[in-house]
Amino acid sequence: MNILIAPDSFKESLGALEAAQAIRRGFARVFPEASYTLLPMADGGEGTTAAMAAALDGQWVETAVEDPLGRTVNARYILFDGGTAAVMEMAEASGLQRLAADERRPSYTSSYGTGQMIADALQRGVRRIILGIGGSATNDGGAGMAAALGYRFLDADGRILPRGGAALSALAAVDADGVLPALGECRITAACDVRNPLLGAEGASAVFAPQKGADGREVAALERALAHYAAVLAAQGFADCADAAGSGAAGGLGYGLRVFCNAELRAGAQLIMESVGIERHLAQADLLLTGEGRMDGQTAFGKIPYALAQAAAAHGVPVIGIGGSIGTDAAALADRGFTAVFPSIPRPAALSEVLTGAAENIEYTAFQIARLWQAARCVPIR
Amino acid sequence: MNILIAPDSFKESLGALEAAQAIRRGFARVFPEASYTLLPMADGGEGTTAAMAAALDGQWVETAVEDPLGRTVNARYILFDGGTAAVMEMAEASGLQRLAADERRPSYTSSYGTGQMIADALQRGVRRIILGIGGSATNDGGAGMAAALGYRFLDADGRILPRGGAALSALAAVDADGVLPALGECRITAACDVRNPLLGAEGASAVFAPQKGADGREVAALERALAHYAAVLAAQGFADCADAAGSGAAGGLGYGLRVFCNAELRAGAQLIMESVGIERHLAQADLLLTGEGRMDGQTAFGKIPYALAQAAAAHGVPVIGIGGSIGTDAAALADRGFTAVFPSIPRPAALSEVLTGAAENIEYTAFQIARLWQAARCVPIR
Repeated sequence: MNILIAPDSFKESLGALEAAQAIRRGFARVFPEASYTLLPMADGGEGTTAAMAAALDGQWVETAVEDPLGRTVNARYILFDGGTAAVMEMAEASGLQRLAADERRPSYTSSYGTGQMIADALQRGVRRIILGIGGSATNDGGAGMAAALGYRFLDADGRILPRGGAALSALAAVDADGVLPALGECRITAACDVRNPLLGAEGASAVFAPQKGADGREVAALERALAHYAAVLAAQGFADCADAAGSGAAGGLGYGLRVFCNAELRAGAQLIMESVGIERHLAQADLLLTGEGRMDGQTAFGKIPYALAQAAAAHGVPVIGIGGSIGTDAAALADRGFTAVFPSIPRPAALSEVLTGAAENIEYTAFQIARLWQAARCVPIR
Repeated sequence: MNILIAPDSFKESLGALEAAQAIRRGFARVFPEASYTLLPMADGGEGTTAAMAAALDGQWVETAVEDPLGRTVNARYILFDGGTAAVMEMAEASGLQRLAADERRPSYTSSYGTGQMIADALQRGVRRIILGIGGSATNDGGAGMAAALGYRFLDADGRILPRGGAALSALAAVDADGVLPALGECRITAACDVRNPLLGAEGASAVFAPQKGADGREVAALERALAHYAAVLAAQGFADCADAAGSGAAGGLGYGLRVFCNAELRAGAQLIMESVGIERHLAQADLLLTGEGRMDGQTAFGKIPYALAQAAAAHGVPVIGIGGSIGTDAAALADRGFTAVFPSIPRPAALSEVLTGAAENIEYTAFQIARLWQAARCVPIR
């Protein structure tokens, strides 16, 4: 019996790997002889690298990079496929997680450290990068990232621009002469679940900069700076993709990745599932167990468990979801590929108590599911 | 597919019948063609008559009786087996539920109304009575009950004693001449889960009278009165069963039932299960669903779901429990006959919220169990 265990993280309580291990513990009490494959999942957001490290048996590496305000920090990412591929998260270098609350100044923060991580990977021989771009502290259109890869952003006097989105208002020209040659040989795919364009009312500055600390005046200045930046690049013959869905992701890093790295932006769930070889695993599986902190109608819109349920259904593999909690509309998941979806809360409790008991509760629920599964398969119909 | 649904009540939220109906709704969404037998269960305590009414297709009847303080109230009970058998609860006539808080005076409260219910049933032709004795407001050793059946309790001057436990201190003789003849032809079985004797430190007065409103002096007086009562009865040749386990139940009604009615006291779960013909139903069942408000290690000590699990295991019928909530030790139920036990709480919530959503939550859980059961039976092993 091949059992595939592929939960997303249980937000605020358990990482995807810990959740997968809890599910395995519960199941193995009933089916100790079964073969278990643990594929902790992620959607490209926080925790993606850690989950993929477990799923892909990745090798952690570390490199010194600039944080969003130029301070040196160690950024970790993973290599897999014999060191030819990498999974990394922009937030590891350039995320809000690197800043104190009063350091959130998206006019000045830069994605430079993300570019340094990419450069480090290129130097190690990586030719395929999966990049999570959630949690950014930046609004620089990916210019910082590009600068770390060798692009030079110049003002009218030929001086290199300072870091940050605001400075892009003085951009006069981009010089690509110093770009790392390996960049052209590397396929970069970013996990992106937002569809915002770079500019305008739905753009990076208007929608996301306020979350990163910008006030109204700063938003307006950043909008003008990015509009000017995109205009200069288009005039210089760079890809004109400011309007494309996702270009506004991560403070315009989506745009920068497309323009400077020829990157592809893909829905996180699909990208991560493909990266861990989900089709190959499903072809061998008798049962798929998945889950996440909360399973509800929203689960049906691109999230990991739903995407997995679709894939599993195509293989005729039953898929059972374990939620930390479930929404009032969770019964609808039965029509969307899920065999069953169980909550794992054992008794009335406040959220905080549920969070601390998550591993134990998930293990219990998996144990009961396994017991029921075993009984249903063993009992003869009279 | 024969599905037996036999939950206990979910205390404070759902009666056993409502819980059974919720389970059926959930299951029938997956197995609309299955045959469902609903056996709402009870342990002899509150709600036993209502549950048995549904399980036995009983006929409700009503009779005017005295409440614990002698006021006239209507008491309801059920007839079944063509009117030859009845299920009733002493609390319906003589329970604390009939009293306001300041009316709890166990020196004066009487089980007379319970005797009137029994007399009414005898008059209707009933020759088998199942009697729940929980929730009593009385401490009269069942003397009131016996008086309603024709026994006369006399003082030294030959006057009939007033009602209530305190008056028994003046008992000089019991006259059985006026006892209803049908009483001798009727088999009365009481559901009793306490093992207290009539007298002493573990007796009715010491242990239960305080819950019924007695202070220390009243407890001592009641103890003396019941001791005198038992001594007079023994001296007159009545069964000497004050020390027997359960004689102290319901303010000594356990004793009175034995002495005056030749009644048998039995563990509630076993009695009720037998009364609804559980063995016959299990012989036909493919699956048993049970449950109660809280399922935990305590469930393993005589409660309905545990007793059912034992009976089901003997028939090789898988038994699945649905708890409102489950205890931290619920996993141990797997070693005690349960195939699986699921909680039904969908998300972090206070108890009050869980209680109001119980029917919906139980239905959801049953639905998921049915989905899992169906999938496990249908999917081929590769």
